[in-house]
Amino acid sequence: HHISDRLSKDWIFLTTCAIIMAVISFAMDEGIRLFTAVRFWFYNDITGDPFARYLTWVTIPVLMILITTTFIHYLAPQAAGSGIPEMKTILRGVPLKNYLTFKTLIAKVLGLTFVLGSGMPLGKEGPYVHIASIVAHLLSKMATPFRSIYQNESRSTEMLAAACALGLGTCFAAPIGAVLFSIEVTTTYFAVRNYWRGFFGCVVGASAVRLLAVWFQGADTVTAVYPTYISTEFPFDSRELVFFALTGALCGLLGASFVWVHRHYVLFIRSSKKLNKFLQKNRLLYPGILALLISSLTFPLGTGQFLGGDISTEDQLTQLFSNFTWTEKNLSEKQANIVAKWSTKYTNIFGNLIYFTLYHYFLSIIGSTMAVPHGMFIPALKIGSGFGRLVGEFVAWIFPLGMRYGDCMSPIMPAAYAIVGAAAFSGSVTHSISVAVVVFEITGQIAFVVPVLVAVLVANAVASLLQPSMYESVIMIKKLPYLPDLLYTNSSLYNKHVSDFMLHDVKYIWQGITYQKLKDVLRMNKKLRSIPLVDSPEKMILLGSVQRQELVKLIEDQVGREKRMEMAQRWLTEELSDQATERRPSRFEVVPAQDPQKSNLKQSNQQSNDSLNSNSESRLRSTFQSVFKKSSESDLDLEIGTNEHLQPVTSPSKRVHLIGDRVVDMSPEGKKLWELDQLSKPIDFYNSAARIDPSPFQLVERTSLLRVHSLFSMMGVNHAYVTQIGRLVGVVSLKELLKAIEDINNQRFEPSVREQQP
Amino acid sequence: HHISDRLSKDWIFLTTCAIIMAVISFAMDEGIRLFTAVRFWFYNDITGDPFARYLTWVTIPVLMILITTTFIHYLAPQAAGSGIPEMKTILRGVPLKNYLTFKTLIAKVLGLTFVLGSGMPLGKEGPYVHIASIVAHLLSKMATPFRSIYQNESRSTEMLAAACALGLGTCFAAPIGAVLFSIEVTTTYFAVRNYWRGFFGCVVGASAVRLLAVWFQGADTVTAVYPTYISTEFPFDSRELVFFALTGALCGLLGASFVWVHRHYVLFIRSSKKLNKFLQKNRLLYPGILALLISSLTFPLGTGQFLGGDISTEDQLTQLFSNFTWTEKNLSEKQANIVAKWSTKYTNIFGNLIYFTLYHYFLSIIGSTMAVPHGMFIPALKIGSGFGRLVGEFVAWIFPLGMRYGDCMSPIMPAAYAIVGAAAFSGSVTHSISVAVVVFEITGQIAFVVPVLVAVLVANAVASLLQPSMYESVIMIKKLPYLPDLLYTNSSLYNKHVSDFMLHDVKYIWQGITYQKLKDVLRMNKKLRSIPLVDSPEKMILLGSVQRQELVKLIEDQVGREKRMEMAQRWLTEELSDQATERRPSRFEVVPAQDPQKSNLKQSNQQSNDSLNSNSESRLRSTFQSVFKKSSESDLDLEIGTNEHLQPVTSPSKRVHLIGDRVVDMSPEGKKLWELDQLSKPIDFYNSAARIDPSPFQLVERTSLLRVHSLFSMMGVNHAYVTQIGRLVGVVSLKELLKAIEDINNQRFEPSVREQQP
Repeated sequence: HHISDRLSKDWIFLTTCAIIMAVISFAMDEGIRLFTAVRFWFYNDITGDPFARYLTWVTIPVLMILITTTFIHYLAPQAAGSGIPEMKTILRGVPLKNYLTFKTLIAKVLGLTFVLGSGMPLGKEGPYVHIASIVAHLLSKMATPFRSIYQNESRSTEMLAAACALGLGTCFAAPIGAVLFSIEVTTTYFAVRNYWRGFFGCVVGASAVRLLAVWFQGADTVTAVYPTYISTEFPFDSRELVFFALTGALCGLLGASFVWVHRHYVLFIRSSKKLNKFLQKNRLLYPGILALLISSLTFPLGTGQFLGGDISTEDQLTQLFSNFTWTEKNLSEKQANIVAKWSTKYTNIFGNLIYFTLYHYFLSIIGSTMAVPHGMFIPALKIGSGFGRLVGEFVAWIFPLGMRYGDCMSPIMPAAYAIVGAAAFSGSVTHSISVAVVVFEITGQIAFVVPVLVAVLVANAVASLLQPSMYESVIMIKKLPYLPDLLYTNSSLYNKHVSDFMLHDVKYIWQGITYQKLKDVLRMNKKLRSIPLVDSPEKMILLGSVQRQELVKLIEDQVGREKRMEMAQRWLTEELSDQATERRPSRFEVVPAQDPQKSNLKQSNQQSNDSLNSNSESRLRSTFQSVFKKSSESDLDLEIGTNEHLQPVTSPSKRVHLIGDRVVDMSPEGKKLWELDQLSKPIDFYNSAARIDPSPFQLVERTSLLRVHSLFSMMGVNHAYVTQIGRLVGVVSLKELLKAIEDINNQRFEPSVREQQP
Repeated sequence: HHISDRLSKDWIFLTTCAIIMAVISFAMDEGIRLFTAVRFWFYNDITGDPFARYLTWVTIPVLMILITTTFIHYLAPQAAGSGIPEMKTILRGVPLKNYLTFKTLIAKVLGLTFVLGSGMPLGKEGPYVHIASIVAHLLSKMATPFRSIYQNESRSTEMLAAACALGLGTCFAAPIGAVLFSIEVTTTYFAVRNYWRGFFGCVVGASAVRLLAVWFQGADTVTAVYPTYISTEFPFDSRELVFFALTGALCGLLGASFVWVHRHYVLFIRSSKKLNKFLQKNRLLYPGILALLISSLTFPLGTGQFLGGDISTEDQLTQLFSNFTWTEKNLSEKQANIVAKWSTKYTNIFGNLIYFTLYHYFLSIIGSTMAVPHGMFIPALKIGSGFGRLVGEFVAWIFPLGMRYGDCMSPIMPAAYAIVGAAAFSGSVTHSISVAVVVFEITGQIAFVVPVLVAVLVANAVASLLQPSMYESVIMIKKLPYLPDLLYTNSSLYNKHVSDFMLHDVKYIWQGITYQKLKDVLRMNKKLRSIPLVDSPEKMILLGSVQRQELVKLIEDQVGREKRMEMAQRWLTEELSDQATERRPSRFEVVPAQDPQKSNLKQSNQQSNDSLNSNSESRLRSTFQSVFKKSSESDLDLEIGTNEHLQPVTSPSKRVHLIGDRVVDMSPEGKKLWELDQLSKPIDFYNSAARIDPSPFQLVERTSLLRVHSLFSMMGVNHAYVTQIGRLVGVVSLKELLKAIEDINNQRFEPSVREQQP
């Protein structure tokens, strides 16, 4: 109780969450480090024979991937993949089943450690977001006394959003970038109120994970992950901005093609039915082959030598960001060592950089189709920095003396291009601008604010004109129920109104609808989870909406077994007391009044069709009486089962008993008649037990698409009714809205293409 | 047309806006530089006599402030002050009059240049936001063919939000920080869709302003404004985080007290009626005295020597961020020069730093009460960096050898504390976290991410627990119609429902209300800008809401002069044709049918009270006929003015003319009778000309305060009706919501104080 009481305070909750996350992150990092060390140890120290070395180099990753695929498949298939597309969907208000469970957490943590430990060209930012979200979700469940608060949707959404930031924060040790990136990537509308939560979580998480490194690994202090040492006195010449913008544009094209290739590769594999069947039967074949292919290509004695296959991702990035021109003649020993890693006797650095970029470009796409946990950000960072370095070295090679400005010459810094490329490519793949901040933080360098931002903006503009972001692409592939952002703010968003895309044929019920008709409506619209209630089919004034289960319960109450038995019991009592004598008429008068349900029913019915009702009731009662007589006579017949074909229900309901411990029920015919009569009665929703949601979201016909989108995405609405001065005239659900947005987006390459902007 | 067509594209619009803003910013900077140079020239080179030097030092600022006060007062009083509180309000959806005009732009630009040129301890970030917003607003007006788009509220809000970011971007040359700061400071809910606009505008603006500097001032390149040169290899020891957090807490306390002192000083001056009257009469006295006081205190030969009075703000900040310990014995010449500025023969650096901090603390509060354009961010930055440097030097003095970690000693860097203090204090004053990013960008240094964020978060937590932000405080002082953020996410936000704070006594009109009653409702509720329409006073089903002006027009149409004349004319025609002969009865039958307005009226009336109406009409007509006879007889009397006391209206309406070119009107009595009759008719809103807003925002009684707040702040709603299954039961306006939030915030120090968090 003490703990759960405390967890209800946001900052304690976040601190707990951040520390758990930091510990998990640290443990995972240690695990990955260990696996990597083992891999390299096997490769380096076991044998000198190239073939044996190749076998050890390849076997471990393949085995690890096979193990991961297997246990992910059996433990929690939800743990495969990135997690960001799914978190986008969850934060949009659509809960995904089994997505935030403890099982998934275990599977994701172990799986990610194995996958990254096996040296696959995959990242970890998506899984970290997923893991942090699960931790926050499970933790919020522990806050039992305040569960009501956490059950509040907007509160839990706020917490999940903060957890996403936190996950990224511990992943990159880049608190500010993580908060911004998580906002950009996961949400559409952001409550500034929630801002501090992300920062707080990130700072605690990032500090904790770095402090753990300081304490347990002897790291010196909390500092940048891939530190760069670039003099800030003269970072770049103003005219170099053109080159940076160009790098950005190229990265944008590359990024868009990356997303396109990825989606079409996945769709291609999926579309081939034969291949699909084969792979489904031999579940381990595909990941096994891929792991073999990928690890073969990185074999340091083979093609691995062209892409720095024998150094870790950290070292690769640090070297790509190293601040000297690789083509220079006079290099220090340390510098020469770096260049040695990026050139071979067959190739110079340009060849290696091209191979490095292409390898990561294609193999991270292919690798990401394995059903294992993986992220796309680190690969994107590597592709981008490789490409950027390539451009930078090229520019430095063309202008060996640098740019001239006035009297002073400023040399080209290829490292700046590597940083710019990393930010621009990852920005174009994820459609986010805040990668710039992430890059500043992980390099510990903010001197290139303007070049990086220029390149990121250009890359974003190019990429978003051509392709959706990687995460949206995955959402499309997985067909998750996600509402896309309206990135293209053209006039059609303002000029398209609800009336243009709403569903005119609304299914509705009305005050005074008969139970029978309600039953029909429910039967014919099985997919509707709630149905609008209007005052009458003529006026169509919207009164509210009723949940399907409420309506089902209403019918159940009216013609269900309980009610039927009760009526049978009452009528039998009356019948008996009538039959016995006319001695106690007073009691007969009292009975209906004592029953609140019946009096209610009567009262409510009186309002609408009093005379009809009393007629029908007396008529029915007489029917019942005759039927009851008949059925009590045929009681024995029933016992021996002659009437079984008429009543295919369970035996207790078949029996008709006398008062006392015996169950009283109607005969089959009586039941049918009674049900028909009951169902023909009108429902008075005002006085019924059914809970009515009196304010379903309502729109007017002239509401613009933009506003509908805002409402749906901000409020997590799934459907809204369209009214015209109170009259229900249509309905819009996520489906219609999605279609309308799709229409607009498809149009965008045709008439309105002129109006597009970055 | 060509230009306005192009401006409709977002990115061209933003580029234009950014370039205009950069030019304005550059011109202002040049102006300020010029004025400052003149001031220093007068002080340094004109005379050696201390008294004469004092006079010149003091006279120029006083004169400049007096000139500014005068022309601000006459040209555009709206230009005084910061501008951020007002922009917050405008972005919230409440338009402020004359706030975004060309006049205000001119006044603000000139005023700010004068004020900063005069050396007052005031900043420029607020005015820059205001100026950029005006530029964007005026520019969007130029995009005429797409005016309909720009008139769309959410679009123009998006553009204004981007302009705010742009203003800050050109002000600080810190694009990322500016975008984030503008989001935090001006909006409550942020559309991620709009994110790129801010970045784009900022990057263009920041680049343009720096490029202008490169081209026109011979600056080397686009670089940080207050560059720092701190080795990033070992920025700080992990245990120093405690000191940084402590600095943050102290800055939080200082910041909260800063806001408190400012508000109470303003309220004190305002509360004293005598003083107020006196100052209003002698409008120039107060600013004159203040300018004299402030400039006297900075006189370099007097107390100015204790606060670096003879160096500019840029130099002050750069020196405060300088990376060496001022108390060290062995200083280079350059370093000794800096220390010489911060110590005198009477005081050491501690005394000077304290005096510097206190001076800016109090005098920027006092200075900001002058009715001139000013910002609060730069002063806050100076106070914070002064205080931070003080703490840093103190820590360095206590631990002269630095912190020991394992074998290596890491020296204390007072510059880090100065940076931390600057971020923490300005963060606590503005309640924003993104100042951290602003500080990174203006120092060109991101090595201190963790310390700065820790301090900023602690400072924010402390400050927001004690006081509102500076901008919210000003909003309170100015009583702007702004909805505060819900910073304290305690459970009461979820448990408080609309029904707890709505207004139960709703004024409404109904379908079939008589014109007379409508008139009464309008007369008794003059403040209501729109009135809800229900189907009937019994059922109270909400049908929509109608604007006041629509209703006024409706009454005008019913009993206005035009309608009256028309009726008089018609009746006269009928009268005449009746009188003439009974020869053409057919024509008499046809007339009413030919008039669509009358037939409409009849038709609608038929539905409700047909018999009554025709009775009354025939009765009225006979009255009219008699009256008309009388009045046409008394035509001459009217001409000579005998009836003037009965009809105090203008002469044309007094006259009763025959058909043709003469104006036909009713007599006073007839008019009264006719009006009474007209007003007693019911209104059929379905068929009337009044435009009904069929979907005013509707809430349910159980809607939580949080959701109401989100709706109001996201959608810019001013009032919403509360319904219960379609029935109108209450209304919530900004006023009620504000009160409810205030109640919660006042409670927060009492029972629920346990649940607070940073």
